[in-house]
Amino acid sequence: MPTIVQKFGGTSVGDPERIMRVARRVAKAREAGFDLVVVVSAMGHTTDELIALAERVSPIPDRRELDMVMATGEQVAVGLMAMALRELGCAATSLTGGQAGIRTDGVHGRSRITRIESGRLGRLLSRGEVPVVAGFQGISDDGEVTTLGRGGSDTTAVAIAAALRVADTGGCCEIYTDVDGVYTADPRIVRSACRLPRISYEEMLELATLGAGVMHPRAVLFGEKFGVPIHVRHSQKPDPGTMIARESQAMEELAVVGCALKEDLGRVSIRQIRNTIGLQGRIFTALAAANIVVDDIMQTEQGESTMIAFTVEHGDLGDAKEIVAGTLAQLGEGELSVEVGLAKVSAVGVGMKVHAGVASRMFRALAEVSIPIHNITTSEIKISCIIDKADGHKALEAVHRTFGLGLGSHATVAMQTDQARA
Amino acid sequence: MPTIVQKFGGTSVGDPERIMRVARRVAKAREAGFDLVVVVSAMGHTTDELIALAERVSPIPDRRELDMVMATGEQVAVGLMAMALRELGCAATSLTGGQAGIRTDGVHGRSRITRIESGRLGRLLSRGEVPVVAGFQGISDDGEVTTLGRGGSDTTAVAIAAALRVADTGGCCEIYTDVDGVYTADPRIVRSACRLPRISYEEMLELATLGAGVMHPRAVLFGEKFGVPIHVRHSQKPDPGTMIARESQAMEELAVVGCALKEDLGRVSIRQIRNTIGLQGRIFTALAAANIVVDDIMQTEQGESTMIAFTVEHGDLGDAKEIVAGTLAQLGEGELSVEVGLAKVSAVGVGMKVHAGVASRMFRALAEVSIPIHNITTSEIKISCIIDKADGHKALEAVHRTFGLGLGSHATVAMQTDQARA
Repeated sequence: MPTIVQKFGGTSVGDPERIMRVARRVAKAREAGFDLVVVVSAMGHTTDELIALAERVSPIPDRRELDMVMATGEQVAVGLMAMALRELGCAATSLTGGQAGIRTDGVHGRSRITRIESGRLGRLLSRGEVPVVAGFQGISDDGEVTTLGRGGSDTTAVAIAAALRVADTGGCCEIYTDVDGVYTADPRIVRSACRLPRISYEEMLELATLGAGVMHPRAVLFGEKFGVPIHVRHSQKPDPGTMIARESQAMEELAVVGCALKEDLGRVSIRQIRNTIGLQGRIFTALAAANIVVDDIMQTEQGESTMIAFTVEHGDLGDAKEIVAGTLAQLGEGELSVEVGLAKVSAVGVGMKVHAGVASRMFRALAEVSIPIHNITTSEIKISCIIDKADGHKALEAVHRTFGLGLGSHATVAMQTDQARA
Repeated sequence: MPTIVQKFGGTSVGDPERIMRVARRVAKAREAGFDLVVVVSAMGHTTDELIALAERVSPIPDRRELDMVMATGEQVAVGLMAMALRELGCAATSLTGGQAGIRTDGVHGRSRITRIESGRLGRLLSRGEVPVVAGFQGISDDGEVTTLGRGGSDTTAVAIAAALRVADTGGCCEIYTDVDGVYTADPRIVRSACRLPRISYEEMLELATLGAGVMHPRAVLFGEKFGVPIHVRHSQKPDPGTMIARESQAMEELAVVGCALKEDLGRVSIRQIRNTIGLQGRIFTALAAANIVVDDIMQTEQGESTMIAFTVEHGDLGDAKEIVAGTLAQLGEGELSVEVGLAKVSAVGVGMKVHAGVASRMFRALAEVSIPIHNITTSEIKISCIIDKADGHKALEAVHRTFGLGLGSHATVAMQTDQARA
């Protein structure tokens, strides 16, 4: 029988009643004959509460000690989940990250998984038990408890699925969440958006990075690297969800599979500066040192001088401006300006690699609804336009429509069916 | 410098403010040059809350999984304590029971410590760090998380002190609690009771078993076995406390060092039964199988028939009666009666071994205040009398007085000084 790794997030296991509900779902899958590994996050807001507690003792808690404290959240959740499964007559054993053989590089707060020693998982599975593994954590070679940082539990699940070679058994990694799959656009904004039954790792990565919050890019990257099919499903509904897998010939038939909107961006523009060797490195190293995450970088040249612009989240704009101003003062040249109230609309699809005219179609669609485009960035499978935030929803709808993603009445029916089931 | 193991209970670390207070005390002792290991219990009522959470998932939680859940309570506490110490500039590293090398026999919920692999503790100490160890837990040779049951954190502290041979360094194990030491009698009942500066392991064991709740007998036994001096101290006061150590010549000068009262006892009496081989085993095996803890057992003979009586806590009396009635029915003989509203007053002292007339002095003291004695049991260093519960306080005072434990005005002064400091 196929081996399936099922991951349940904090909301799905937020209280004893929800834990029992998830346990019933797991027990049913086990009865159907699947070999199962369950990965669980900390209950509800436990992690935030533990961080707040730590900050009452130490405003900037030591990272090693914070990991010791945070790791308990998942440990409680797996213990309770294993109890719930046993209560239902389903043999189950909880495991901390360390007990499950998840070895990390030892960096506290944002460890990377270096390998998985899957011996114990294998022994439990061969006995017919369900291992219930604490997400988000592992141990270093020194036996230190470390957490994996953002997207950690998804990564745990995909990494275990890779180590157990679930694809070879016909299985996959199921990520249970509070949405029923990946959509062609955010259904809260675009009413005709519809669920994608299938999407490639690359497309999912772009969408995840562009603000589609279904899955953390890190876990998708892991899945791509090890060829783990990732099935995104709703934790409370029996919907078919979305399968994230390698791109196939069929996927390339569509130029664009989805579009996304990232709001609340600000832009820093540097003009009248000579394009000397090392200029860009100097600017962005200073920003990175201040932990400012730069969204997109655009550069153009005009005669002797160059123009560099980049977007950041609105909250980082003030710091970014100050840091760049400092760098320009050192250089003794350059004009600085900042704009607020921007957004980014993007279209994503592996089909772009083979379909021509995708970009021009997107630009025309925005022009038709009179939306000015401030900047453009592209990757092999993505086109993004920086626009005014006020135009955001209208732009997303226009792009969604121009690539025929909504499928008209068909999509509307699908949406209504979902809501009726909810 | 001496190595000292300091253990702080759940109340002492009940919130971030108390954790900081304890951390300041630890940091001060470290600055004074002591090598320190700190053992911490779970914060406040954490353990009870985790058990209640588990019972919402599974009414009788699996013991292995309950250990996984419960062990997180101490893990949070040690992480926070280490953060607090670092915040004060005191190098500290938290350790789970497993990381501290505490190996157990693997019995979930009530493990015994089989050995301590103190390598990591030693390395931290030699680097000048304070290891902060999670009490109440350890790991089995299979890497399973197990808890030690009642008195577990005290036992962790004493076991670490034994493994580190603190006595050889001139150090000891300090148990910080919410009382300022071991008293000659419960000071809430006997106003003239005074703190004992020193008590032997044996005497402490008897007193602990008789209801003096300062320390769990298990940790005292451990201390006796490995010769660890145990210093019981108040966690918020600088009082000298009580040192529990091997009996010395000086200790035998006093026939009685303390007395205790255990209230809310019931008694089951069996009369008119032949004293056949195996009779006692049959009765008490049936009680043990029902998890009824028998307090004292007394047996006397009268001609052909024998009489067996035993005391139990009041809450167990109904079950005990039923079980004994069943056994008597099988035997086809014996008369059964139960009494409620009893108490036990005891006098304890290693000096009894060498002093004659201790028992008669105690009986006279009770007779002088007109208290009838229902039963008597004795050990090498203890005499107990079963009396009416209503006579309890008066009996404790009489016994305390007859052995000169209150030391008259001197003790009163000591008590007042303590209260003034509190």
